[in-house]
Amino acid sequence: MPPRNFRNIVRRSEYTGPTVGVCRGYAKANLAIIPKEYAFDFLLFCNRNPRPCPVLDVTDPGSPHPPLLAPEADLRTDLPKYRIYKDGELVAEPTDITDYWRDDLVAFLLGCAGSFDWVLQASNVRYRLIGAYTTNIQCYPAGRFHGHMVVTCRLIKGAHDAVRAIQISSRHPMMHGPPVHIGDPGVIGINDIYQPEVFFHRPISLQEPDEIAMFWGCGITPQAVAIEAKVPFMITHCPGHMFITDLLSEELSVM
Amino acid sequence: MPPRNFRNIVRRSEYTGPTVGVCRGYAKANLAIIPKEYAFDFLLFCNRNPRPCPVLDVTDPGSPHPPLLAPEADLRTDLPKYRIYKDGELVAEPTDITDYWRDDLVAFLLGCAGSFDWVLQASNVRYRLIGAYTTNIQCYPAGRFHGHMVVTCRLIKGAHDAVRAIQISSRHPMMHGPPVHIGDPGVIGINDIYQPEVFFHRPISLQEPDEIAMFWGCGITPQAVAIEAKVPFMITHCPGHMFITDLLSEELSVM
Repeated sequence: MPPRNFRNIVRRSEYTGPTVGVCRGYAKANLAIIPKEYAFDFLLFCNRNPRPCPVLDVTDPGSPHPPLLAPEADLRTDLPKYRIYKDGELVAEPTDITDYWRDDLVAFLLGCAGSFDWVLQASNVRYRLIGAYTTNIQCYPAGRFHGHMVVTCRLIKGAHDAVRAIQISSRHPMMHGPPVHIGDPGVIGINDIYQPEVFFHRPISLQEPDEIAMFWGCGITPQAVAIEAKVPFMITHCPGHMFITDLLSEELSVM
Repeated sequence: MPPRNFRNIVRRSEYTGPTVGVCRGYAKANLAIIPKEYAFDFLLFCNRNPRPCPVLDVTDPGSPHPPLLAPEADLRTDLPKYRIYKDGELVAEPTDITDYWRDDLVAFLLGCAGSFDWVLQASNVRYRLIGAYTTNIQCYPAGRFHGHMVVTCRLIKGAHDAVRAIQISSRHPMMHGPPVHIGDPGVIGINDIYQPEVFFHRPISLQEPDEIAMFWGCGITPQAVAIEAKVPFMITHCPGHMFITDLLSEELSVM
């Protein structure tokens, strides 16, 4: 289904579920909406930390239309579910944010690993996605935004596929790019990869001797940092309910 | 010479010439300094137009130290020559901007084709760099910043080298990335490639039948757009007098 058709169904509130499996091949994006007062620092934070926070598109203040990714989309209605935060506290989980919209809001669409997994699979890379973890890697701060990088862990089967995974992810800096770490999870402060903060797949069997642990920057990072910064008002997508863009993942690759 | 040593010589005002040929292999950066009031729109403009305006580093408001590229550098003293603009008018060309510095200034370091030419040459790509031109390609606007893209033209010798030039430049999105146009200059509004607005090399002999014209986004674009926007106060590097970073061009490549 073309992204526009899918978004129209969502806009009419006929679908409110997750977007993980929809519009195969099209790039998904994470959403973070904050007041313009905080937008420079947040954009700078993302620019300084492109692995967890690749900037795909930013709206003009007050505009709900992402000019680069899908100018006809309306970010107030075209995601199936949102989260509203006040002073860092989750206060609502609506399926439409028209009533929450303000003229000073700026929407950030950030790269999402959901698209990246399709790219790996399209190349028959064999791997197991486990989950997400907060590391001891300090992000470069910007203004009030600072915090540790969140990463995802994938166990890649064999050296050949591990090399392919690095090549393929390097072609996609807009979907977190190459891994930020390979090998020993302890080096980046992860004590137990079987105890992620967010599980993507379970149950997990133990790492095989020929599986290589690789860690990529995760799009949870910028939202976690913005919540931690207690921005007075913020809207995000509800986890798993990402925005579907008009661009194929391959249209965003660098080579 | 390591970049830090070169910058120290510049800082002591013992060198005020261009930086085109210095610190071979190290990435150079264009400089644009504007008040914080305009910084979000300008950063957004650069994010929306990464081919002419790749963002390498942005300082915290009031700080002259670029955290990612050279944290020990001081952008007030470490470039050989600057330009001061008031309301879009050039008013001074000092070799030091300490007296002009203000607590609300934000410095942008943007990718520069000077580094990219070394990368092409290191791969023995045969070409002639001609000059820079304003095209009919509209940049994506952001706030008060809007205008046409400026490009550079290179004549690449033969199809093999032309393909190599696209591969190599694609590896370097921080130095303008791949060409924005190939072939007929008229398509992007250039009437005569032998009449650039800025000449890099003369005299120029006519294009040979086996030479392919390629056009890359040019770092003149963001400065031209900021001048056009009549930002009340702005500082840039003087043309040819770019900042020398601590990073090799290859450290900024994506693959």
